[in-house]
Amino acid sequence: MKLLIIGAAGMVGRRLAETILRDGTLGGARVDTLTAFDVVKAGLSTTDRVTEIAGDISDRATVERLVADRPDVIFHLAAIVSGEAEADFDKGYAINLDGTRYLFEAIRAQGGDYHPRVVYTSSIAVFGAPFEDKITDTFITAPMTSYGAQKMIGELLLNDYSRKGFFDGVGIRLPTIVVRPGKPNKAASGFFSGIIREPLAGLDAVLPVDDSVRHWVASPDAAVGFLLHAATMDTAPLGARRCLTMPGLCVSITDMIEALRAVAGDAAVAHIKREPDQTIRTIVAGWPQDFAPERALAAGFVADTDFQSIIRSHLRDTADATG
Amino acid sequence: MKLLIIGAAGMVGRRLAETILRDGTLGGARVDTLTAFDVVKAGLSTTDRVTEIAGDISDRATVERLVADRPDVIFHLAAIVSGEAEADFDKGYAINLDGTRYLFEAIRAQGGDYHPRVVYTSSIAVFGAPFEDKITDTFITAPMTSYGAQKMIGELLLNDYSRKGFFDGVGIRLPTIVVRPGKPNKAASGFFSGIIREPLAGLDAVLPVDDSVRHWVASPDAAVGFLLHAATMDTAPLGARRCLTMPGLCVSITDMIEALRAVAGDAAVAHIKREPDQTIRTIVAGWPQDFAPERALAAGFVADTDFQSIIRSHLRDTADATG
Repeated sequence: MKLLIIGAAGMVGRRLAETILRDGTLGGARVDTLTAFDVVKAGLSTTDRVTEIAGDISDRATVERLVADRPDVIFHLAAIVSGEAEADFDKGYAINLDGTRYLFEAIRAQGGDYHPRVVYTSSIAVFGAPFEDKITDTFITAPMTSYGAQKMIGELLLNDYSRKGFFDGVGIRLPTIVVRPGKPNKAASGFFSGIIREPLAGLDAVLPVDDSVRHWVASPDAAVGFLLHAATMDTAPLGARRCLTMPGLCVSITDMIEALRAVAGDAAVAHIKREPDQTIRTIVAGWPQDFAPERALAAGFVADTDFQSIIRSHLRDTADATG
Repeated sequence: MKLLIIGAAGMVGRRLAETILRDGTLGGARVDTLTAFDVVKAGLSTTDRVTEIAGDISDRATVERLVADRPDVIFHLAAIVSGEAEADFDKGYAINLDGTRYLFEAIRAQGGDYHPRVVYTSSIAVFGAPFEDKITDTFITAPMTSYGAQKMIGELLLNDYSRKGFFDGVGIRLPTIVVRPGKPNKAASGFFSGIIREPLAGLDAVLPVDDSVRHWVASPDAAVGFLLHAATMDTAPLGARRCLTMPGLCVSITDMIEALRAVAGDAAVAHIKREPDQTIRTIVAGWPQDFAPERALAAGFVADTDFQSIIRSHLRDTADATG
């Protein structure tokens, strides 16, 4: 089978590509080719069966070329993230809305016998305050950022194109990914990874919110698992509602710190420096904290078991990368 | 003040225009000019203060010209309706999505000191089965038609452009308008008006569904009232959720028939011919039946009082038109 990953140079996209290339199969079928597309080349660990392409998905012709060889499964992960989409209104809509629509239109333009699986990464940013205590699968999607609005428009298009039979879409709303590897970034959510990753590396990390704050998180491995399941699952039970909130873990800062203590001891926890930041507290207060993702669980998506396992998985990744 | 009505040749748009021209004011301010735009000229009853323009809102330059003289209030009612958007996928997206986006972008392009009120007509078609028994204001919007998806995308854009301060938007989800004047049309919902309008004119009307079917309806007068209130209300209490389900009446076919009997007698009711149609029954079974539109009521939108009043209002309109 032929695969296309759009957004293959991002943290999750690259991990997905490496996993598929290592497995060599997807849903029991042999992977013959994988096209890895992003704004820069992903630099995957093998060139066997892989074509890496750098380009711009807000350019219609570029997207049409990507679809022209009719991949069986298309993963669409490319996006301008929340902060940048808020700062650059035009760029956010160009990539997140127009790019997505060009992709869906290019698939439709291939015609009647072409009917690929399309896996679209959405986000819990499609939800906005005020929330239910545990957000159910029938709660209103009322985004409060341009990124959330763009992701939600993509969901509506995915549902409509799937309903019309132009492709077979599944949208997955990712939790915040923790522990993100690499260096600290400027995202308002960055501290959720930072307070684990930095102490494990012997470095200080700033905690800008109260210990009582809860958040909806999933590990990088869980995120790849969601994508692989979305690519291979039976979509018939989804009906017209193709987009699902993924099962994360609802953890408080206290939960995270105690898990860190259990895995790495008091010395690690001592690296967490409480520096309340009213701007970040206000942003985080507008984020959803907990969900009841019953449809996703019924459809076979599997959450992380507990936060200590997430930390241990991150430690293994770090050892692999440096060893 | 300067007004622009996009979709001024439709049933509701024309009624809105005539009402405003008759009143001469909107929210206490004098109406200096009204531009009435649609795919055909509306043919309003006066040319005083009115400019009628025929054009295509899926043409970006046309929309930019409409916005260039900076109307204070813009009513956007233009749409490809449900049946046609389902039959002609490209046309539906071109008018309902691209046209709406061109309008919003043209307003934004005018720059910082231009901040009009934008009143956008959405629809209860943004909802799709399975439903709550009474649909609340936090229920998921999961459309099951391309029209519903396009209207919902417009809602997301309206919310986002309003949140960013590019304009001051209000979206109103209209119930099915009953009694629609004029001839029967081919819409699946047409019989809701037909079983009242035709008997009152001494003509037979087909009832294709069971008497127990309930539906969410509003009169043409109520629809104009919603639009005028949306144009003049204080939007601050709406927060980020600018789009509201309008307060309709939940009436069953039995309710409608008994109201007809009370107003026009058994002879009128005898014109209703029960001819069950499985196709229409299936379509109607997928429509929402009842709502709890609490936010709209709190924001001052006013529903029809009862279905007999709707019928009497239709009779007065008919007398005016023929007298």
